[in-house]
Amino acid sequence: MKKLAVGIDIGGTNSVFGFVDDVGHVHAKSSIKTAEFEHVDDYVKILSDEIRKLFTSIPDSELIGVGIGAPNGNYYKGTIEFAPNLRWKGIIPLADMFSKELNLPVVLTNDANAAAIGEMVYGNAKGMKDFIVITLGTGVGSGLVVNGEMVYGHDGFAGEVGHTTVYPGGRMCGCGKKGCLEAYCSAKGIVKTYLNYLKKNDLKPEIPAEEVTPKFIYDKAVQKDLYALKTYKKTGKILGMALTNSVAHLSPEAIFLFGGITNSGDMIFDPIKKSFEKNLLPIYRNKIKILPSGVKENDAAVLGAASMVWKEYGKNI
Amino acid sequence: MKKLAVGIDIGGTNSVFGFVDDVGHVHAKSSIKTAEFEHVDDYVKILSDEIRKLFTSIPDSELIGVGIGAPNGNYYKGTIEFAPNLRWKGIIPLADMFSKELNLPVVLTNDANAAAIGEMVYGNAKGMKDFIVITLGTGVGSGLVVNGEMVYGHDGFAGEVGHTTVYPGGRMCGCGKKGCLEAYCSAKGIVKTYLNYLKKNDLKPEIPAEEVTPKFIYDKAVQKDLYALKTYKKTGKILGMALTNSVAHLSPEAIFLFGGITNSGDMIFDPIKKSFEKNLLPIYRNKIKILPSGVKENDAAVLGAASMVWKEYGKNI
Repeated sequence: MKKLAVGIDIGGTNSVFGFVDDVGHVHAKSSIKTAEFEHVDDYVKILSDEIRKLFTSIPDSELIGVGIGAPNGNYYKGTIEFAPNLRWKGIIPLADMFSKELNLPVVLTNDANAAAIGEMVYGNAKGMKDFIVITLGTGVGSGLVVNGEMVYGHDGFAGEVGHTTVYPGGRMCGCGKKGCLEAYCSAKGIVKTYLNYLKKNDLKPEIPAEEVTPKFIYDKAVQKDLYALKTYKKTGKILGMALTNSVAHLSPEAIFLFGGITNSGDMIFDPIKKSFEKNLLPIYRNKIKILPSGVKENDAAVLGAASMVWKEYGKNI
Repeated sequence: MKKLAVGIDIGGTNSVFGFVDDVGHVHAKSSIKTAEFEHVDDYVKILSDEIRKLFTSIPDSELIGVGIGAPNGNYYKGTIEFAPNLRWKGIIPLADMFSKELNLPVVLTNDANAAAIGEMVYGNAKGMKDFIVITLGTGVGSGLVVNGEMVYGHDGFAGEVGHTTVYPGGRMCGCGKKGCLEAYCSAKGIVKTYLNYLKKNDLKPEIPAEEVTPKFIYDKAVQKDLYALKTYKKTGKILGMALTNSVAHLSPEAIFLFGGITNSGDMIFDPIKKSFEKNLLPIYRNKIKILPSGVKENDAAVLGAASMVWKEYGKNI
């Protein structure tokens, strides 16, 4: 009887789920549209039905639990709280709801924490006791691991490195504050940096400004476009500097970068590392690794969510 | 037979030591001059002699271990490493040296970490699992506690919040970087802020500039001196902002402020709290306490050092 964990990654548009074994093999995967459900009860019911349905396709196996990575997910309470990109407002006791529906233990946290546990269980952080995962995407998320344990903080909301201030009074962030790391290093932030460079030089992108994406900037950078290259340099410089503040708190063994832009390889890692080493306190220099995530991006969210189940219940079941 | 821990606080000028019981009572205390010893071997020998001598004055008691708070102290290795304000250069295996000399277990860490453990064992952080202690003095130090455990990081050097960057490219810090929190909120930083205000207004302090201390500025502020009051406001503003970056990492239940300037009471706490709440991510607002340390300042360093022994060996001895 093969033991499997359900991993659910809840995004504003889609909810992806899959069945994952202890070595990180995804046995089946599917998704439903999160945004289609006005009421969260309907969502939990339908998603549970889909999970049960897909599970019948896997022979000789049993489920040991459910892991959920969700925006604004609170590990202690199993809730999602005031998630700005979900339709269900207020505080939703999602872990309890799924637990009742599926009759399984449910662990829930935010997506970046799930990514960090995924890195620890299935990725490049195996055996590490102190590390940080930074997720670079629509937002900038983070998962912190100290003494081998996730840092949830007293309220379950620790690990918002994307909202540390890098430039006091700087660029407006979606959170309402100014100068946050996310305002510069999220997908939107990177695009803004690029468009700012063009504007300053009285230039316009070849496509409508609102259609510019990090992928577009990447393609331009590969073609040696000056402003695309400058954008990479500036993004790396800011991220490298911000990460030294994380080091001054936690002195991790490694920092893993996860998400679309990390696929640009040296083009983004080089300026990050340069700025990082330059801004580190001398005692930390040349000993903290900045690495790409070791979890395959396609399955990462589901793996991260499922990994929580293996970390929490794997040994006892 | 009363059980006692030895607490040693090593400073650049003095080394203070004392015998502390499990409830934080200091039974005897004395000191030697750190700076008088050219060789660390002599220092360890003489200090050990002094410890033995003073111990004979306490009847019916036994020693369970030694705790040392030292600049650049490394918990994992029991060493002090390249401490800029000590005469002994390089890496000194101080814990081993004292352990051999006194035949007792020795725990060593830096002074701010010792202060944090002191807060947890004897002070206002009793029962808290997630909190931060910030020490405001010659430097700005910090001790971080997560999930009930000290954060030492992978190398023993975690918790340097004083060297997080608050203003990129800002004021030069003693560490060689620019814009560190310490450059603004250490004793020297506060004095610099005050002198800068005077200079900008073509004024000079009534005493030679090099004799101005935070105490002098405090006395001026009490007399409603405009620039002294501005200095408090600016110091609080910067510290409050910097602390929100620590919250975005660890979401602690409370932040304890320790050291001379915290004796100014509301004059410093009010601007800190105002700036803190203003700069916090909304999910953290109005739930994280900023409090003065609950450990008496006079004995704090010795209590902090001794508390490590009680935390580590107290239950088993």
